[in-house]
Amino acid sequence: MTEKKSPMVTVDAVIERDGKILLIKRKNEPFKGDFALPGGFVEYNESAEDAIKREAEEETGLDITIKALLGVYSKPGRDPRGHVVSICYVATAIGEERGGSDAADAAFFTLVEIKKLKLAFDHRDIINEFAVL
Amino acid sequence: MTEKKSPMVTVDAVIERDGKILLIKRKNEPFKGDFALPGGFVEYNESAEDAIKREAEEETGLDITIKALLGVYSKPGRDPRGHVVSICYVATAIGEERGGSDAADAAFFTLVEIKKLKLAFDHRDIINEFAVL
Repeated sequence: MTEKKSPMVTVDAVIERDGKILLIKRKNEPFKGDFALPGGFVEYNESAEDAIKREAEEETGLDITIKALLGVYSKPGRDPRGHVVSICYVATAIGEERGGSDAADAAFFTLVEIKKLKLAFDHRDIINEFAVL
Repeated sequence: MTEKKSPMVTVDAVIERDGKILLIKRKNEPFKGDFALPGGFVEYNESAEDAIKREAEEETGLDITIKALLGVYSKPGRDPRGHVVSICYVATAIGEERGGSDAADAAFFTLVEIKKLKLAFDHRDIINEFAVL
C-alpha cells in the first residue's frame, strides 16, 4: 500500500421520517453545539454501508435502512480537521431517537425548522441537494 | 485530525462512447496485464471529481465530463493492497484514447467484448451495475 497521505473517509446520512430529517447536536469540536447529519469516520476494514449503520446507531439509537447514495462530498476545506471525503446516504429509520456517543441530542426536524439552525460542515449544502430531489 | 488508520480513497470511471466502455490494460501490479476502468488514488487536497479527471487524462489521454455518480465500492478485500474505498463515476469523453502513466493501453470495448476480458479488482461488478441502468 502506498504511504502517500490520503484523504480520510467519513459517512453521513440524511435519515428521513414523516417528512422530517434527523439531526444530531454535536457534542465535540469541530462545530461543537451545531447541528449535523449523523455520521462519522469509516473504520479500516469496514464498508461504508456498515459504517453509517454503526454511526447512526451510536449517535441516535436508531436502526437505519439505506435507501440510496445521495452523493460524495470531497472538496478540500469542507472539514477543518483536514481533507475528509464524505459519502452521504439517504436512509429511513425505526426506533426512538436519542443522543449518543458523539451527539448531545438527536431529533427530527422539518426543512423549515432546519433553515433556522446552525449546521456543521457543508451539511446545509447536502440537505439542500436532498431537498430538491 | 485523528491518527487512526483509515481506508484509502480511489476514483474510477465508466467512460462511455458510442455504446462502448473505455478500459485500460494495467501496467503495474496488482492485476498487471488485466483490464480495468481508468482511475486511481485521490490525492490529499484534491476533490474526487478533479482526481478522476486527472487520472483519466493521465491513463488514456482523454478529457472526460462527469455525468453521474455510479456508486461507492468499499467492501474490505476488494483491493489486495489494503482497504480501498472507490468512488465510481459515469462519464463521457472527447479526444483520441491512448495508453498513459499506469496504463499499457486504452481502448473502447462493447459489453460483449468485455465479457471475454480478465478484469481487475471488482470492476466486472461495477460494469455490471452500470449495464443494468
